[in-house]
Amino acid sequence: MEKQIIEYLSKYTVITKELENAITESAFFKNYKKGDILLKEGGFSNECYFILEGCIRSYFLKDGEEKTIEFYTEEQVVTPANYAKSIPSKYYLECIEDTVLNVGNPALEKEMFDKYPQLESLSRVIAEIVIANHQETFTEFKTSTPEERYLYMLKTRPDLMQRASQYQIASYLGMKPESLSRIRKRLMKK
Amino acid sequence: MEKQIIEYLSKYTVITKELENAITESAFFKNYKKGDILLKEGGFSNECYFILEGCIRSYFLKDGEEKTIEFYTEEQVVTPANYAKSIPSKYYLECIEDTVLNVGNPALEKEMFDKYPQLESLSRVIAEIVIANHQETFTEFKTSTPEERYLYMLKTRPDLMQRASQYQIASYLGMKPESLSRIRKRLMKK
Repeated sequence: MEKQIIEYLSKYTVITKELENAITESAFFKNYKKGDILLKEGGFSNECYFILEGCIRSYFLKDGEEKTIEFYTEEQVVTPANYAKSIPSKYYLECIEDTVLNVGNPALEKEMFDKYPQLESLSRVIAEIVIANHQETFTEFKTSTPEERYLYMLKTRPDLMQRASQYQIASYLGMKPESLSRIRKRLMKK
Repeated sequence: MEKQIIEYLSKYTVITKELENAITESAFFKNYKKGDILLKEGGFSNECYFILEGCIRSYFLKDGEEKTIEFYTEEQVVTPANYAKSIPSKYYLECIEDTVLNVGNPALEKEMFDKYPQLESLSRVIAEIVIANHQETFTEFKTSTPEERYLYMLKTRPDLMQRASQYQIASYLGMKPESLSRIRKRLMKK
């Protein structure tokens, strides 16, 4: 599993043998079951995650209904918005599959960044890529019809259809379950 | 103007006198006129910006119509998605007011980060705040009605109503200009 992290990081920078060893030695893994909640609305967060296997869904409740914000899958970083801050979370994080995570915390992060500034530099680069991707997804969303949004998801994240429920995907796409089902039927006829 | 940058950065970390001097000496400012284009669709980007005064709009063309992605105003960082990469931009960046920018480039960035790792650390922290804010805005957008979206903008970024045209704001909110005008009329009657 350590290998997977090194491979991921190597996409962005050269990982020296020394850094590889440090990461391998400090890496901390946890196994979760489908349905496990990593963070609750109103809760505090002192952990960030790198997904080795599985799927995490973020959602919140609006008028008693679950509204899915995001799905995170393999090789994605999940940093709760309130990570290491003393403010309550606005949303839930739930494992919707059995999930294996590399778990980080502020103390470990600080230790590693102090020792290996290259790692902090890498975190910045990755954060900037995440920003650019977010922006693209948001733009696509804002300027698309519901059907186009669904097609964009099929193109960019086809695995989600197998991993999440129709109900979760509908709210993720900002539509009602009935609308999603109507769109799918229409497209199948084409 | 240098002071404004130092004040902004001081919100996130302690800026030593030495770092303050380095920033002040290396800071590079440019003035732009309303209507100036900083980046074109298909163009390459070797500059990132910190807005001291003014407003930048990002947009792209879809079927000949301008679709506004984002408005950036004072104390916001604008890093084009293709910054320092050899890929063409998917959107335009336009000054919609006379604008004063602190302009960065990859060489200067590298020099400053190498010399002051604290600055890179700060960039990472700010990037993570930007990610959390993006996520919140996107979530709000996805789970809101058009009227709620408009009210959310009035609450979080009331200045935009004065700075941008109705046409630009409508597409920023993901709706047609007629829908925005209908919503505004309805709310004024309340």
